[in-house]
Amino acid sequence: MNDRIEFRFSGSGGQGLILAGIILADAAAIYEDKNAVQTQSYGPEARGGSSKSEVIVSDSPIEYPKATKVDYMVALTQESFNKYIDDVKETGIVIADKELVTDFSKARGKLYVIDMVKSAREELGKVLGLNIIALGVLVEISGIVSHESIKNALIKRVPSGFEDYNKKAIEIGFKLGKEIKNNN
Amino acid sequence: MNDRIEFRFSGSGGQGLILAGIILADAAAIYEDKNAVQTQSYGPEARGGSSKSEVIVSDSPIEYPKATKVDYMVALTQESFNKYIDDVKETGIVIADKELVTDFSKARGKLYVIDMVKSAREELGKVLGLNIIALGVLVEISGIVSHESIKNALIKRVPSGFEDYNKKAIEIGFKLGKEIKNNN
Repeated sequence: MNDRIEFRFSGSGGQGLILAGIILADAAAIYEDKNAVQTQSYGPEARGGSSKSEVIVSDSPIEYPKATKVDYMVALTQESFNKYIDDVKETGIVIADKELVTDFSKARGKLYVIDMVKSAREELGKVLGLNIIALGVLVEISGIVSHESIKNALIKRVPSGFEDYNKKAIEIGFKLGKEIKNNN
Repeated sequence: MNDRIEFRFSGSGGQGLILAGIILADAAAIYEDKNAVQTQSYGPEARGGSSKSEVIVSDSPIEYPKATKVDYMVALTQESFNKYIDDVKETGIVIADKELVTDFSKARGKLYVIDMVKSAREELGKVLGLNIIALGVLVEISGIVSHESIKNALIKRVPSGFEDYNKKAIEIGFKLGKEIKNNN
């Protein structure tokens, strides 16, 4: 039985993809009884636009820490969507932002197009926190960790003074995730 | 020819080991023409004390991202020193803080015991920034990236308003690294 689940956050540098990955791995390994590996891997192309951050979660020790058959991918730019979608599983789920990704000709697996940027703008007043909204969506859709675990992990990793802002962001993500699950 | 070099930061959660690893990987991949993978890997034991963050740097693409033959290890607690030293190479270098690690009975490779906490306290006025001092020591001793690259990567990753503090911290690390190199 394969209990290994692979997550990939993709977008551009500066969107907080690494932090989102670290919080997810913390939630799984520190607040729940799982194993987790969080990785970012880049070559010289990192100077260009796309970047990614990956998390493997498993009940068993994780031998190979790179994602090769992605179960859940978040895409926050068109370029990263195109570049990193190829190793999403046929049964995988891709979560893309509705404003930032518009060409779905390369889509694989199940595609959820969600208005995350718009929600950030309308409900938080700015786009800062998009990574945390996406994390909330991912947790809600995957059910990989509980809301409580991810919120505990979140609070430990965000700068002090920004706890409430980030709690609001993750709740927006839970809500968006719930809406799309109910429509599918 | 094996151009793969493995780095490990070890200590306790909250010491900023992941950030140190990310900055090193950024410096190598974004500011120099290298490949880099940064990983943190933890199981249920993460709820206890020790944690680690690893970086592999190579001129070639990196197939296996976990550290198994460590070239350079930083240890910022006794527990992490004991726990993670076993896969340091015979020819590897271990950088330990003089106050935080005092029992060297398990030492392997070449051991550099350096007064990093003391320098932080005396030159920065607090211990915040110990991770960046250790990063500076590591860069100076390994020569893996230039001072300029690591400083560029550092400035991009630290919270705004803390740039000068962190620049001071990394310069302390360079200085400590240079001193110990000259004595060996």
